[in-house]
Order: sequence, then structure tokens, then C-alpha cells
Amino acid sequence: MERPGDVRAAIRRGEWTAPTAGLATGFVQANLVALPAADAFDFLRFCVANPKPCPVLDVTDPGSVEPAQLAPGADLRTDLPRYRVHRHGELVNETTDARAVWREDFVAFLLGCSFTFERALLAAGLPVRHLEAGVNVPMFRTATACTPAGRFSGPLVVSMRPMTPAQAIRATQVTTRYAAVHGAPVHVGDPGELGIADLGAPDYGDPVEIRAGEVPVFWACGVTPQAVAAASRPELMVTHAPGHMFVTDVPDETLAAL
Amino acid sequence: MERPGDVRAAIRRGEWTAPTAGLATGFVQANLVALPAADAFDFLRFCVANPKPCPVLDVTDPGSVEPAQLAPGADLRTDLPRYRVHRHGELVNETTDARAVWREDFVAFLLGCSFTFERALLAAGLPVRHLEAGVNVPMFRTATACTPAGRFSGPLVVSMRPMTPAQAIRATQVTTRYAAVHGAPVHVGDPGELGIADLGAPDYGDPVEIRAGEVPVFWACGVTPQAVAAASRPELMVTHAPGHMFVTDVPDETLAAL
Repeated sequence: MERPGDVRAAIRRGEWTAPTAGLATGFVQANLVALPAADAFDFLRFCVANPKPCPVLDVTDPGSVEPAQLAPGADLRTDLPRYRVHRHGELVNETTDARAVWREDFVAFLLGCSFTFERALLAAGLPVRHLEAGVNVPMFRTATACTPAGRFSGPLVVSMRPMTPAQAIRATQVTTRYAAVHGAPVHVGDPGELGIADLGAPDYGDPVEIRAGEVPVFWACGVTPQAVAAASRPELMVTHAPGHMFVTDVPDETLAAL
Repeated sequence: MERPGDVRAAIRRGEWTAPTAGLATGFVQANLVALPAADAFDFLRFCVANPKPCPVLDVTDPGSVEPAQLAPGADLRTDLPRYRVHRHGELVNETTDARAVWREDFVAFLLGCSFTFERALLAAGLPVRHLEAGVNVPMFRTATACTPAGRFSGPLVVSMRPMTPAQAIRATQVTTRYAAVHGAPVHVGDPGELGIADLGAPDYGDPVEIRAGEVPVFWACGVTPQAVAAASRPELMVTHAPGHMFVTDVPDETLAAL
């Protein structure tokens, strides 16, 4: 399926419940966070204060299920293949249809996702080890605190891709253009600087091989809001399930440095 | 006065009520918009949807007068040299002290200002005509609508600097690094494309000479919120007076592409 609207329609009909990597190649996929309106201003402030982990691509009108900027006509309650429901910071349910849990007063946020910059890395001839290995990217909760805003605070979550130092420099150039999808790395080298004890034991995703001559390169990660939810315990938060993203109508290239 | 804290202290004591251009060189200056909390979420959504005219640098906690990210300890009611008070979209007052009009439930937004990228243009040897002439930059309301959000909608306002085409290309490169202060131009060339009838009659600021071989180069402008206020008529909005900015503790270079 190459057209975003076809992907969303298949998902809405319940015909696709798997991860979205590789679908509608070349179109932006996005992280979902939906919250009651009473928490929405604090969460938007949190995102604005932490643009690297939480780059805001679209915000719905309170009560609307349509992301008007990224995919007019879509329905965020049904158009993602899998959702997670968090109550008071605890993951309580995973579902393929969010209509039963979606509240009238929800505000939904779509945040940039690393798929876009990974395509740019591959196009530049740079290695993306977890894609080579066919596993999920390794992700780590760090000892670095996000900038708090209102009721939201918590740790920065990073993803890691091993590269040679020369490749890390090129990757910094390539991803700098994509500030709307996490942008340049936050750290290169010693994981201890981020408070990461063991690169072989990621907090989310899968470990990957780091070869001789390679260093770990860390990017801010869109899983950060889920770690922040665990720390901040909002009454109710609905997110995508990892890897089960919202497919937008927006070409990747439109997110490159404006 | 070269230190931001000294500038703000002098302003707070009432010793400086003039424009802030040239003060604390090398530190970011910011546009101010303060609104009742009930309008703050819609306004923040408006800014996020329109990052070129409204790049958000800091948002206060509701009821706080301190921009904790940009200048800890500062007081936004007293630390700008001149304010404008808008009621239902009408400019009703200009004052050097906003304490009498500041509401307990205000949320204040600090938005990026072109001073930062103009320093970068000058450092790159590019002309900034209004600075050469010692006048205000010419600004124009355009026929381009901003992306609406909640109760806020209105026209994009642009600033204009004349350059040769080669200089416009270099200026595009230089300002692309400064997405947090309006970023790359929105248009180069025919002002009619933006619905601007007469470059000699700006809606704000002063006209400047366009020399043979030069084209007008247009950037999104931080005066946009004031035009949006006029169109959207919020109950109460306090802004800086044009040119009378908030001086932050943040060096300009920290806003270059992260």
C-alpha cells in the first residue's frame, strides 16, 4: 500500500493491525498522544519546551478526532493499527480501536517520528543497524530530565544507532535538516554521560550490534511522552503502540528545514 | 549596557524607556504576548501551527511573571521598556509599566525576534537596509492567512529587506539556521504574490530604498500576533511596543539550528 489514504482505510476496516514501518513510503508517520482537554495546555507547553523529543506536527481542536493539518478527513480513534491506554501513568490496555476509550474532551497531538530521518540517513548511505537486523530500534530512559511544564515532567528517552565517527558527523548534518522529527543527535559516544548503564539492555526495543570502530549515536525519541506519562501520572492518556504509527498525507521532504 | 540583567534592571527602575535595539548585543531579544489563561491554549496552538511568524521561545506558568527558560528571576510586567494593551482587538493604551493591567491569570509567551537573524546577516556581510538608514524595518500585512487555531486567526505579517538575488540566496542559507527566529524567507520577488500593493507604504515601520538590481526579500514577522489580535479580538492582550523588546539571558548562537 503506497497511498496514505489507502493505508488508513485498511487500518480503519481492521485489515491491518501490524506495525506501519514500510507502509506509504515517503510519507511522514507520527506518534500519537491524546489527553483530556484539562491536561492539553500543560502537555503542549511541555512539547514546546522539549522540541527534540516532542516535535509537534499537529494538534486537534478539543473534541475533534481529525488532524486537520496532516490528514484532513482522518479519524484518530480508528486510523492507527494499535493503541495503548494509560491510566494514572500505568499501561492498562492495548487495543486496535480506540473509540471505546476516546473521550469527548480529548485533544490529540501528533509528534514527529524517527522513520522520516531514518529514510534520510539511508538515502545518505549511512547505516541504520536495527533496520539491517530487522529488529526495533534500541531505546533508553536517560538520567537527563526534560524541561518540566505544568504537571508534566520526566526523563528524556533516546534511541541509539551505532556508526563510525565520520558517519556520525554526516548523520548530524543530515538530521539537522529534520528538526521537526527529532533533529540532530543529543549525544555521541559514552552512554554513561546519559546515565545509560548497559547498551545491551535497552528499556524499549531491541539491542543491536556495535562493531569495532563504531560509537553509539543517540537521538531524542518520541517514546519520551510515554515515560513522562509514567512519571507524571495523568488521569488518562491514549498513545499509539510502539511502531504502530499514524500515517499522514505529508511527504517526508516537507519536514526538512523550512 | 552589555549584560542582559543590567539592561532589565535599568528598565525596571524606569531608567530606560526607549527601543532595545543595540542593547546587550549578542543576546536574544523577544516579542511578548500575554493573555488570560482561558485563551492561552488556543494561542499556543496557533503559534505551533504558525512557527515562522510565531516561534515560541518560552511560555510562563499561568499566573507567573517569570520566563523561567530565558531569564530566571525576570519580571515580565516591568522588564520591558514599553507595552501595548489591546482590548477586544483594539489598541487602547501604551505604558512603560504593565503591573496595573497584568491579570492574575495571565500566561505570557515570548516569541523569537528578527534582531537575532539580522546580526547573522550582518556577520555574513549581507545588507540590512533599514539598519543602514537608521529606520524601522518595513512590515506588511499580507493576503496570506495564517493557519487558524481555536479562536485565533488572521493575516501573516512580513518584514522586507532588499537584496540582490545572490545575496537573497546567501541570506536564505544564513537564516535557515535560525528557525527559532523566523527562519528562511517566505518569499523573494513580486510583492503582489503576497497581496502587497505598494512597497513604499508599509503597514508598520518605515519604507526603505530598493536599489537597481535588488529584489524584495520577505520574512515572517513577529508583529503577526498583533494583526491576529486585531482580527480575533481577544478580551485582553498585552504585548511589547514595537522595537521595545524583552532582553533575555540567552546568547543568539544558542538559537542556531539545534
